Amino acid sequence: MKGKTPAFRAVILAGGSGERFWPLSTPERPKQFLRVFGGESLIRQALARLDGLVAPADAFVVTTKNLVAATRKELPEVPKGNIVGEPMRRDTGAAVALGVGMASGAGDPVVGFFSSDQMVAKPKEFRKVVKRAVAIARRRNAIVTIGIKPGYPATCFGYISPKTRAFVEKPDAEKARKYVRAGYLWNAGMFIARASVFRGAFAAHAPELECLAKSGGDAGPLAPAALARLYAALPKISFDYAVMEKAKNVEVVPGDFGWDDVGSFAAFDKYFPHDRRGNVREGPCNVVEAEGNICVARSARISLLGVKNLVVVTTPDSVLVADKSRVAEMKKLFSR
Amino acid sequence: MKGKTPAFRAVILAGGSGERFWPLSTPERPKQFLRVFGGESLIRQALARLDGLVAPADAFVVTTKNLVAATRKELPEVPKGNIVGEPMRRDTGAAVALGVGMASGAGDPVVGFFSSDQMVAKPKEFRKVVKRAVAIARRRNAIVTIGIKPGYPATCFGYISPKTRAFVEKPDAEKARKYVRAGYLWNAGMFIARASVFRGAFAAHAPELECLAKSGGDAGPLAPAALARLYAALPKISFDYAVMEKAKNVEVVPGDFGWDDVGSFAAFDKYFPHDRRGNVREGPCNVVEAEGNICVARSARISLLGVKNLVVVTTPDSVLVADKSRVAEMKKLFSR
Repeated sequence: MKGKTPAFRAVILAGGSGERFWPLSTPERPKQFLRVFGGESLIRQALARLDGLVAPADAFVVTTKNLVAATRKELPEVPKGNIVGEPMRRDTGAAVALGVGMASGAGDPVVGFFSSDQMVAKPKEFRKVVKRAVAIARRRNAIVTIGIKPGYPATCFGYISPKTRAFVEKPDAEKARKYVRAGYLWNAGMFIARASVFRGAFAAHAPELECLAKSGGDAGPLAPAALARLYAALPKISFDYAVMEKAKNVEVVPGDFGWDDVGSFAAFDKYFPHDRRGNVREGPCNVVEAEGNICVARSARISLLGVKNLVVVTTPDSVLVADKSRVAEMKKLFSR
Repeated sequence: MKGKTPAFRAVILAGGSGERFWPLSTPERPKQFLRVFGGESLIRQALARLDGLVAPADAFVVTTKNLVAATRKELPEVPKGNIVGEPMRRDTGAAVALGVGMASGAGDPVVGFFSSDQMVAKPKEFRKVVKRAVAIARRRNAIVTIGIKPGYPATCFGYISPKTRAFVEKPDAEKARKYVRAGYLWNAGMFIARASVFRGAFAAHAPELECLAKSGGDAGPLAPAALARLYAALPKISFDYAVMEKAKNVEVVPGDFGWDDVGSFAAFDKYFPHDRRGNVREGPCNVVEAEGNICVARSARISLLGVKNLVVVTTPDSVLVADKSRVAEMKKLFSR
């Protein structure tokens, strides 16, 4: 370590199979390319949100092999070499390890991991909190995570106990209420630490991922063939499970900046205005005596008559009609 | 009246606004052009059903002005002059009167009225019953109607009392059950009588329509401008209400030949095979944990997830998603 303040680099994790927002998203254009919120794609928003904290040259993206070209096109200001595709999906454990390897370098930079498909309503507040987390990561031998102040007892997120710093899995409804009462925070998948601290954590808790975390930097990037060979042997394991649930050197910085995961079409209910019957519409939708529907017309005009709580989406190739309460089960449409 | 057996001529009533099967049907291609049942359009089936009873030269069609060309194309064997378009919609009272005028001629033929958009499961039995009705109409100064043996206590059809020969309007559910128990028959809108008998009935009960019923035949058809002027002054009134509810010289011939009105998408449930969850499908439909839906994919592929009792129809221009119990209210989609 030198006396100079180490750089802050950001890695945007941008995998995604395009299933949960199908047919708006597809395997070739997964969720992070969605333009429904505020005009810009979610991945552009993820980068723009770090404006002032991270220069484009210090931004990295870990995505899947088939999405590298689309990602480079979407983020032309990021150096091409900073956008790398995983040869296959191995969950966030491998993605974080690869990102640590890519973002490593002289001066042991602080590396922060962020998702490509999240919403932040208050980006200024977000930047403040990230700054705080980066400052802690600079000073201490710790992985700093940003814990989100829960807006409601969600069952679709993991939680973090701010006292014990324990990471806990997605709870059922009852446990979720208990967690919220006890002051637990949502695990938003944001991790910030010096590259060396991440490497140490992999060495200690997930040695099978250590090699990836040590690639890049001075060692230079792995050749595609080597990367493919390495990935084929890796376990599918999340970073939470591989490292965060075991590490003792965890710091939690609470954040409250209108964060959301944009996990499914149900999120449209939160971000779009409703008509007086609770319908959310985009494009030509003729809605008659219908309530609580999400109606997205990207090609043919949609007419709804007397239906309730549906998600109806049209694209030139596909029409989705799903019960709103079932959108978490979108995968079932692709299981044949 | 001469000693020679008078001819039998058939008039197919083919109006229709295309609303009830929208978007499969449209104002330019209303229900009678639908090809979903058995491959042929409903209007072709209506004509074919009379095969052996009516020569194409003795078949007539009353349709709306804008549908004349499409109808002539659909029924090329019918003489062009036998297919006439009403200048505006004036309900079945005017349509029957115009049909009587068109089909009148030497020898006072028997004229039968049939709808263009009905289903008959047993056409052979249908022809037998029509023959019986025609024979009665030849002999007697009566309007013969074919009353359908009810399959269930329908509330969407009018009924005929076989004893009093009284025509009664569409009943509520309770009355419908009473009618069925009492042996009432469905009013299928089939009327058969000598042209002179129809003319006499108009003269007696609906003199405002008499002029139309006397056009055609020896008098020659009305010029389009004269027809338009005449129609503009006509009341919108059904033939049932204008004539049948008042006439005393009514004969009822019961029929049981698998008749149905094909009134709405709900009819698909009767005529198409179901999958094991009660869904009816045409075209590429991916149906996951969905029940009782009618799914017609004419352009984009439809995916249903977890939805129940919907009608989902796609065409290149439009997507309809309606609750199955609401399809009778399709008009509401066009009321703006």
